[in-house]
Parts: sequence; structure tokens; C-alpha cells
Amino acid sequence: MSLVETLYPNDRVIIREVGLRDGIQMAEVYPDTEQKKRWIRAEYDAGVRHFEIGSFLPVSRFPQFADVREIIDFTHSLPGAVAVALVLNERGIEEALKANVDELTVVMSATEEHNQANARRSRKDSIKAIRHAVVLRDQLNPNAIINAGISMAFGCSIAGHVDPDEVIRIAQACLDAGVDTVGVADTVGYGGPTEVSAVCERMTRLLSGRPYVVHLHNTRGTGLANAAAALKAGATIFDASLGGLGGCPFAPGATGNVVIEDMVYLAEKMGFATGIDIEQLVQARKLIKESMPDEPLYGDIAKSSLPKNFVYCS
Amino acid sequence: MSLVETLYPNDRVIIREVGLRDGIQMAEVYPDTEQKKRWIRAEYDAGVRHFEIGSFLPVSRFPQFADVREIIDFTHSLPGAVAVALVLNERGIEEALKANVDELTVVMSATEEHNQANARRSRKDSIKAIRHAVVLRDQLNPNAIINAGISMAFGCSIAGHVDPDEVIRIAQACLDAGVDTVGVADTVGYGGPTEVSAVCERMTRLLSGRPYVVHLHNTRGTGLANAAAALKAGATIFDASLGGLGGCPFAPGATGNVVIEDMVYLAEKMGFATGIDIEQLVQARKLIKESMPDEPLYGDIAKSSLPKNFVYCS
Repeated sequence: MSLVETLYPNDRVIIREVGLRDGIQMAEVYPDTEQKKRWIRAEYDAGVRHFEIGSFLPVSRFPQFADVREIIDFTHSLPGAVAVALVLNERGIEEALKANVDELTVVMSATEEHNQANARRSRKDSIKAIRHAVVLRDQLNPNAIINAGISMAFGCSIAGHVDPDEVIRIAQACLDAGVDTVGVADTVGYGGPTEVSAVCERMTRLLSGRPYVVHLHNTRGTGLANAAAALKAGATIFDASLGGLGGCPFAPGATGNVVIEDMVYLAEKMGFATGIDIEQLVQARKLIKESMPDEPLYGDIAKSSLPKNFVYCS
Repeated sequence: MSLVETLYPNDRVIIREVGLRDGIQMAEVYPDTEQKKRWIRAEYDAGVRHFEIGSFLPVSRFPQFADVREIIDFTHSLPGAVAVALVLNERGIEEALKANVDELTVVMSATEEHNQANARRSRKDSIKAIRHAVVLRDQLNPNAIINAGISMAFGCSIAGHVDPDEVIRIAQACLDAGVDTVGVADTVGYGGPTEVSAVCERMTRLLSGRPYVVHLHNTRGTGLANAAAALKAGATIFDASLGGLGGCPFAPGATGNVVIEDMVYLAEKMGFATGIDIEQLVQARKLIKESMPDEPLYGDIAKSSLPKNFVYCS
């Protein structure tokens, strides 16, 4: 069994908490180290095992991630918990590998236009950089996996429409560069169920049994509709955050990540076991309210309740 | 062409505004007659043609519907606009028919348990009452159509699970009683895409080309995911409300109707023409803010924008 299949067992749909990175990256008020630990602990107790715990970025600009190493160590103190970190450059890759992170997420864009605007290089050069990340990983920490996140995979804020075949071509190039898995991200929430089905059906075929990541945003209300389409298309790893924490950097005031409580409910409702207790997740929202009191929290299951006779999948 | 097909042309997916009934039924502060007219006019200008404009209920208990006749007349002053009213008893049916409403919605429950608790009679007796409504219609106003709304069609707050075959059996009984169309309602928001697909695929077969109504709630966040499933299963008429106005009578504080702006966006995004302009709908939200300032408005497209290069279906 490959390392990625060990970290992502195929007996369930895996829903990852990305709030500790994506959810606080733009926040001015964010949880301190102890609050982060309580947050991780509460979701771990609810059954969540995968946490994007931060980013290896300059502390001067991103003080919210200054404690990223301590958070990795804390995550590793919980049996079976997996720590994922975002890295954007070679220095970050080296630091993340030395910090013993389980998974590094490197990113590039589906479109040439957005890759140039965001990373100031061609997609071809981004693939080269990803290849280099794999070499570094092999040298510094062969136990870490690398996930290549393809942003703008369902629509692009610069190019508009994105051809699913193009996303698959880039996913293939990332796999050829040696990454362990690939992610497709609806970075600006442009996707609808049609685009998500088209991309994820091809991704499921391309990865042929290996898990891949789907990162959806709810910017235009389609988050769960898109997640349902991805589940039907065979996707098994989803990103989400408690209360939908994290906005959209391209649309101030707009909704960001898919709400993890609602995402778990949707998956279980559709017959996919997650191993996660929804009511315990809902309880954990109060930790966010304490550490980020002015941050809007989203989600509908938190305002209602589980249906009568609701049964979790097993 | 039957009357129902004239009111619901098959060249588009029809999204109905139900806020003027479902959205204000529980509200203590509600729009006055002129505000209701401005609301209808704004959505009419955006392309909406179908309005549930109120209910024929005792004015002493439901003063928000005291102007229902004037609102019907106003709706009829707009070419092509259709006025739908909810009726709960024989007196209401007679009054609605005399008021020249285009469509009467009569309701019964999918489950014996809920029908007994809600209407204090058996489902068999409800079918008899529906048959009687058809007789009254034939006598008093043959130009009105009757829609039998089946509540709890995707899950029941008393019985829990609802068998799709049972919903179809009741839909067939309603059609046998002479109604023009049938609606399936997720009254308490218990349904997920699996239940909605199961019921709507059978409904599409049962109605064989005749349109039927899908009334979804977003109580547990699955509103648009369920709508996507219903669209794929062949449903062509959807209920929704501006800003998701209207809560859930069974879960205080919970989300109610599907947000009409987001619903139109979803349908267009999936390739189904609606004839409705999303940005004009978003503009109309301010009328609700004026007439019901304390009512929470939901929806995500209103907080973001249409995607770059977004194209409406035609």
C-alpha cells in the first residue's frame, strides 16, 4: 500500500479541516496556540483525522502561522491524526519537511493566465518547481507525501471557462513530476455541479483508485451541490472548515469554504461513511466563537438538528 | 395543450417566488399591500412569472393575507404572471376560486402519521377532500388548476424515513382524484440528494411530460444540492423565495426556503434556462430589507457576483 493510501484509508470519505490554514489566513484576529490545540482536539474527538494546520510563510507577514511547528507536533500526539501544510516556495518546502509534516500542498493554477498572475511564472515552470519539491522530499523526508493542488480547476477569475481536459492534462503532468496525489480546487467558487462532475469523473479515472482531493468553496451557494456531484463522481477527500471559516480573497464579504458540519451531514445522508460525529462538530463551533468572536460562522445543520431517526453510515 | 402546460411552458425551468405566502406566514412584520406589489413588480421585471401570493385563511389569525384578492388582481395586471394561492379548507377553496386565482395548492402529507397530526384526518379522507376540491373547481372556476402538494415527501418529522414508492402511490391517488399537477415538498428539510433523486425520477416517469412542482427547504443546508438532483431527475418547477425568506415552523431560527437568486444561478449554471435575471433579483432584496428590516436574508450569490464570462442559457 502506498503512503498516500495509508494516510487516506479507502474505507470512508475523508473530510479534512482546513480552517486552521485557509480559515485564518486572512483573519486579523485568530486563535492562539492553545486555542488552536483545543480546536484540533475537539474535532479529533468528533472523528476528524486530517488537518491543514498552517502554512510555511514569512512570520513577519503571517504571524498566525508562527506556531506551525508546535501545531504539527500537537497533531502528531493524537493517534492517527494527519498534519497537512501549504507551502509556496523552496524555503517553505524545506522547513515543512524538516518539521515532519505528513503532507505538503504545493499549488499551481489550471490556467496559464492565472498561474502567471498569481505565481509570476508559466505553468511549465510551476511543474518544474513541483518536480523539484519531489526531489527535496526524497532527500529530506521520504515519509511526507506531496499533494499538487490545482487552483481554478472549475472556472477561472481571469480566463473564465476552464476546459476539464486541460485540468486533467495538468493533473497528469503533476503526477508525472512525482507527486503522490493531486487536488482540484474551486478557488473562486465558479463551479457548478456540471463542471464538478466533468472534472471529477475524469479525475477518478486518471487516479484509478488512488485518492485525490476536492477543495470547494461556497462563494456562490453551490458548495454542497458541487460536493454531492463530486461524491457521485467518485471523489473521496474533501476540504471544509468549521462554520465555513475563511472568506474568499477575491470577493470581500463572500462565503468561503464549505461548512464541515454540513459537508459531513451531506456525505452521511448520501450513504458515505465519514467516521465523524456531526453534533460534536457543531459543539466545537463555540471554540471559534471564543477565539474569533467577530468572524461570521455559516452553516445550516448547526441552526437545526439531525433528522429524526438519522443513522450514520458505518 | 392542457391548462397546466399553458401556465407552465416547457421551454424553461420555472422557478416560483413563494415568499409572499410561505415567506411571510410566520412573520410578525410583513409588507403592506403596496410593498407587496413593488416586490412582485421587481421580480416580474427580473423575469419571474409565478407567484404564490398568499393563503385563504381567516383574516383574524392571518392578517398578512387580508389583501390576497387585491394581490391576485395586481398579479393579473402583469402579462403572463400566474397567481398561486394555498388553501386549507372548503371555504378557502371557494373563496380562492371566486377570487380568480390561477392555481390552488391543496396539501396532504406523505405519511399517515403526519397527515393525522397535521390535518386530523386519514390520508384516505384527504384524498376525498381533494376530489371535492376538483368538483368545486369544475363548478366555480374551470380555468383554475389544482396542485396537490405532498408534504414530508423526502422524510417525515414524525415517521422519519419515507418510502419513495409511498410518495408515488399518493401522487397517483391525487391524480386519480382529478388534480392537474402534484408537488413534492421537503417540508422539514430532511431530504438529501439520494432521496430527491429517488422520488423525482419516479415522479418524472409518473407525470410523463406533465410538469410537477418541487418544494425544497434549506433547513439542513442541502437545498441546492437537492435542487441539482431534482433538475437532473427531470423536475421543471421549483419553489424558492427572495433571500430564502421564511423559516421552518418546526425548527425556530433554522433556514427555510431555497434562496431564489441562488436557485436561478444553479439552474442556469447547469444548463437550464429560467428566463430570470439574477442581478435584478439581487437588487430586489432591498425591498424585503425595507418592509421586513429584522428578517434575516440568506443567499450567497448576493454576497459575491456572477462568475466572469457567465452566460445565461437561452
